Amino acid sequence: MVATTQSLEELCINSIRFLAIDAVQKANSGHPGLPMGAAPMAFVLWDKFMRFNPKNPKWLNRDRFVLSAGHGCMLLYALMHLTGFDSVPMEEIKQFRQWDSKTPGHPENHITEGIEVTTGPLGQGIANAVGLAAAEAHLAATFNKPDCNLIDHYTYVIMGDGCNMEGISGEAASLAGHWGLGKLIAFYDDNHISIDGHTDISFTEDVSKRFEAYGWHVQHVTDGNTGLDAIAEAIEKAKAVTDKPSMIKVTTLIGYGSPNKADTHDVHGAALGPDEVAATRKNLGWEYPEFEVPADALSHFRQAVDRGAKYQEEWDQLFSDYKSKYPEDAATLERMVSGKLPEGWADALPKYTPESKKDATRNQSGATLNAIAGVLPELIGGSADLAPSNKTLLKGLGDFQKGQYQNRNMRFGVREHGMGAICNGIALHGSGLIPYGATFLVFTDYMRNSIRLSALAEAGVIWVMTHDSIALGEDGPTHQPVEHIASLRLIPQLLVMRPADGNETSGAYKVAVEKAKSSHPQPTLLALSRQGLPNLAGSSIDGVAKGAYIISDGEGTPDIILIGTGGETYQCVDAAEKLREEGKKVRVVSMPCWELFEEQDAAYKESVFPAAVKKRLAVEAGVSFGWHRYVTDEGATLSVDTFGASAPGGVVLEKFGFTVDNIVAKAKEVLG
Amino acid sequence: MVATTQSLEELCINSIRFLAIDAVQKANSGHPGLPMGAAPMAFVLWDKFMRFNPKNPKWLNRDRFVLSAGHGCMLLYALMHLTGFDSVPMEEIKQFRQWDSKTPGHPENHITEGIEVTTGPLGQGIANAVGLAAAEAHLAATFNKPDCNLIDHYTYVIMGDGCNMEGISGEAASLAGHWGLGKLIAFYDDNHISIDGHTDISFTEDVSKRFEAYGWHVQHVTDGNTGLDAIAEAIEKAKAVTDKPSMIKVTTLIGYGSPNKADTHDVHGAALGPDEVAATRKNLGWEYPEFEVPADALSHFRQAVDRGAKYQEEWDQLFSDYKSKYPEDAATLERMVSGKLPEGWADALPKYTPESKKDATRNQSGATLNAIAGVLPELIGGSADLAPSNKTLLKGLGDFQKGQYQNRNMRFGVREHGMGAICNGIALHGSGLIPYGATFLVFTDYMRNSIRLSALAEAGVIWVMTHDSIALGEDGPTHQPVEHIASLRLIPQLLVMRPADGNETSGAYKVAVEKAKSSHPQPTLLALSRQGLPNLAGSSIDGVAKGAYIISDGEGTPDIILIGTGGETYQCVDAAEKLREEGKKVRVVSMPCWELFEEQDAAYKESVFPAAVKKRLAVEAGVSFGWHRYVTDEGATLSVDTFGASAPGGVVLEKFGFTVDNIVAKAKEVLG
Repeated sequence: MVATTQSLEELCINSIRFLAIDAVQKANSGHPGLPMGAAPMAFVLWDKFMRFNPKNPKWLNRDRFVLSAGHGCMLLYALMHLTGFDSVPMEEIKQFRQWDSKTPGHPENHITEGIEVTTGPLGQGIANAVGLAAAEAHLAATFNKPDCNLIDHYTYVIMGDGCNMEGISGEAASLAGHWGLGKLIAFYDDNHISIDGHTDISFTEDVSKRFEAYGWHVQHVTDGNTGLDAIAEAIEKAKAVTDKPSMIKVTTLIGYGSPNKADTHDVHGAALGPDEVAATRKNLGWEYPEFEVPADALSHFRQAVDRGAKYQEEWDQLFSDYKSKYPEDAATLERMVSGKLPEGWADALPKYTPESKKDATRNQSGATLNAIAGVLPELIGGSADLAPSNKTLLKGLGDFQKGQYQNRNMRFGVREHGMGAICNGIALHGSGLIPYGATFLVFTDYMRNSIRLSALAEAGVIWVMTHDSIALGEDGPTHQPVEHIASLRLIPQLLVMRPADGNETSGAYKVAVEKAKSSHPQPTLLALSRQGLPNLAGSSIDGVAKGAYIISDGEGTPDIILIGTGGETYQCVDAAEKLREEGKKVRVVSMPCWELFEEQDAAYKESVFPAAVKKRLAVEAGVSFGWHRYVTDEGATLSVDTFGASAPGGVVLEKFGFTVDNIVAKAKEVLG
Repeated sequence: MVATTQSLEELCINSIRFLAIDAVQKANSGHPGLPMGAAPMAFVLWDKFMRFNPKNPKWLNRDRFVLSAGHGCMLLYALMHLTGFDSVPMEEIKQFRQWDSKTPGHPENHITEGIEVTTGPLGQGIANAVGLAAAEAHLAATFNKPDCNLIDHYTYVIMGDGCNMEGISGEAASLAGHWGLGKLIAFYDDNHISIDGHTDISFTEDVSKRFEAYGWHVQHVTDGNTGLDAIAEAIEKAKAVTDKPSMIKVTTLIGYGSPNKADTHDVHGAALGPDEVAATRKNLGWEYPEFEVPADALSHFRQAVDRGAKYQEEWDQLFSDYKSKYPEDAATLERMVSGKLPEGWADALPKYTPESKKDATRNQSGATLNAIAGVLPELIGGSADLAPSNKTLLKGLGDFQKGQYQNRNMRFGVREHGMGAICNGIALHGSGLIPYGATFLVFTDYMRNSIRLSALAEAGVIWVMTHDSIALGEDGPTHQPVEHIASLRLIPQLLVMRPADGNETSGAYKVAVEKAKSSHPQPTLLALSRQGLPNLAGSSIDGVAKGAYIISDGEGTPDIILIGTGGETYQCVDAAEKLREEGKKVRVVSMPCWELFEEQDAAYKESVFPAAVKKRLAVEAGVSFGWHRYVTDEGATLSVDTFGASAPGGVVLEKFGFTVDNIVAKAKEVLG
């Protein structure tokens, strides 16, 4: 069946389809099925509703679009190319999935300007979108005035069956419903196909009813292949519902247009093959060669450039008016967006002396968060239902709730993975917000992919993880992190901080905030103690910035270097005292952050760990894995290479050998 | 308000409550609120419905009980003590949360006989329960006969608000609904309190409606505090619904009986304190001293012992009849439960020579699974919607679906975390089943807590993880594992295998199956290649069992040792050839499993890595973290310490330096 004439809309939609088909075919790799099926809804959305400026993808008040089903990224690249984003010229479409292209196999915001968030791992995108919508709600509530809706945009998502099977999407959707994020509109591309085949082999729940249970407004467009008006009408209705997020289930045919592969999993994740590409061209009446976009379609799409310029111009005028009426708010927002920090903000960081109260670093973290929240209006976040334990509540700053979006304490519930992706979304909103998310360190296991994506996607999040070792005690091995500090150090671009006391906790936050706001933001993860720790002579905020530093030393070349992190550092300091009493020359290095230490120059590294001093003992209440690098062939570790045990924290520490006497004994073994 | 007289039922329920109150108070640590509120439903269930044998907690056909809200473990310990389990005498109740007790802070099946699964990390338990119920359904479909329901038991769960906020519970519940597991009955202890406070701050969705959307039968007991008949009636109704799992929402008061702390989060996770313990005693009319159980209550509870003996006796008779009628099936089941493997089962493992077809280890894994499935009827499992990529389908063995529970291919959908906990449940059913679960290696991040729990809880699961490096190519950094192999090696008791070719893949399965069936089962994780690899001369099944072995060597003491794993081993072998041509003495060590190598004796270790040979180069397409231990101060690594990139696999490998020439060059650098 050949379509002899095509309407402009069909021309546009098929332009999307064939860019996807041709790019995947050229790469002989990729996922053509989703772009082919979802092209109609994406066209209606981008053409008739979305407000964005292709020539300034970072325009603050743009509508955000997230392709949660990231494998269908050719949909996104096609839309971006067609609407005139400079980051995706035709050469990049032709370089789909090739080395160093702007069109990698899944959308990566740090690679391609105009991509909002990095998706691919399923369910992350819809949860990021909840974060984007929450950021919008917060900024609107904070900065808008009765006479000026400065921040006022939608967040749109396309998610697939896979996204909806993942638990993370449920967590985030439940929160979005609870928060009543009315400007979040998610399309569910209901195509019934996943990699294993038809979804009826594993996914027969009533997704719409589930979203209703979450408190969403739900619609169903039964013909997503040709029902353009129905799609547009559904979007209108979704926008009209302002107190609930909207889910629009759009039933489509995956691989629409492919005569032999549509509605099969063959079209999900592989090129159609030359024959089927030809057959699809014929079937859809597409007479244009590979990578050619009909002029009518292109010129229609490219109207987005003028529209975008107009939106931007109007908004710039709005902001200009705002600025004259509300100069302080405007200055704050401008500073936030610019990535700059307020002059002298770090003066707010608490400082400690050895006389300061012995305290848990989780408490010092709480004090720090509260201290800097006063000078950093961009700080917003919370805990996955452990606020009293994580010490993350910002006093007097209220709970972020439906209709109270100006508040800065987010109550994530027991939803670590959703929290992670929501924090990433807030960070990637591009408005300078610094989100933080908290739970017990052991439960980073529930949100590890989101933490990884924060590092990959350059999302400047602060991860606040308390109860950082077996010292947490009675809750036992299910709650005692053992391998977690090491496992997080493994993640590229993530800074892992295990401060030893109050000053180091302040130092960790100093780094975390600065890295969150840098031009290539990095997330920081803090591992904090449940148990009280003394404040150490020699601990310092500046020391933390170097990753490792000498916290206690004798004269001359040391006989041995003790290396401590977190709650074990003071034990090393005490052990060093004992050893010195016996005439040993002992240095203690506090090493809160491996990654920062690795960034130091060779001279600094040698000054801390002289190559000539190979007798070293690392003391950390976690696995030894990785420490060999610092302790050398002649050194040793005092570590926990098994699961922990349930008993009071002090007992557990003692049973596992974390006592000053045992450190002294181990050090003597190393000294031989 | 003092209750002057108590019915026997009240006496029993309050016995549970006060054991929990007193034990938490003595430990000054723990969670009294849940046991106090959930005692009535637990009492009705354990007293009137559950079929178990306290004196033989491993009786195969017992009903399974899972406390998904594991923090409320004093509920479970109280029930076990009261009904006569030998593992929980009163001394152990008094040792709650102390070193080396049988009553740790969360239930651990490997510590306390009679605990089915290890819970505490929220949501795991309900997902384990889906696995237990799936195991029951599978065994029943496999072994039962028209005249004999040999396997016929229920799986009961108590889950809390926290469990229901976690995405993993949604994943597992969706699957349970899809599978129609009619003998799964879950109580939702709807007490409106979590650690942060009332659930209305973060959790206002309609949970019942959500479970209906999953296809569950849903009921609501509005008064779970005193409505014992209503609870019993609901259980009866749930049992009557045989084609759907049942969820019974039971509205309770957390900390019921505590006059000042009930219905607050104060009672969730801390001891009541002496005054409130006294006030609660007064309020509930409880005149018994600490840890004293009224004789009437105890003797009533202890009827479970006689009941249990009777159940067991009846079933033993049933099994005896079964055995005489169906000797082969009975023998198979007995063997499975015993932990024994069929004589000569390992002969089924495929063997390869260098002439065998170059192939991806994921394909060889698929061949191995299919080969051993024929001799191991206990093998059952599947993939999280990546079966065609993970190569995990067992040919001809059908899909495990509603009403087709005898089949052995499980279609988990895109639900990695749910899959993980379901596999753990199947393994911990205690019937000898060996479950396997598969996804891409990078998505172990989605299920890491379940993998960790498989190791902690001694669940003999095989984790089949394919696409194990940057070599997967075009999908890019979101899909390319870099830190994952190392991060999994960190988990205590987990065996991580990265086979180099076909023989090593077979060897990895040999270990995995044996470890799954050992008296202290260990899970094994296989990291398998997407790309084709040559079969190596010298690779061996037996070598794998030692963790590391010499796969290629020259004469005399080597100048350098190249260490390879997985897809990089053949590159090391080829590089060694080149280096030998230049007169170097080169050994190549294949190191598929660090953990097994560490178990070898010193002599074997020295034979592989002589202390005198310090020039070593480890080649692995993952982070270098941890390798310093094996390469010594004089060695080096060829590794990937950044995120990967999207491009064809061969290109990515080359760009990251994984070529024979580059290995040769690096080796020369090490040689100096």
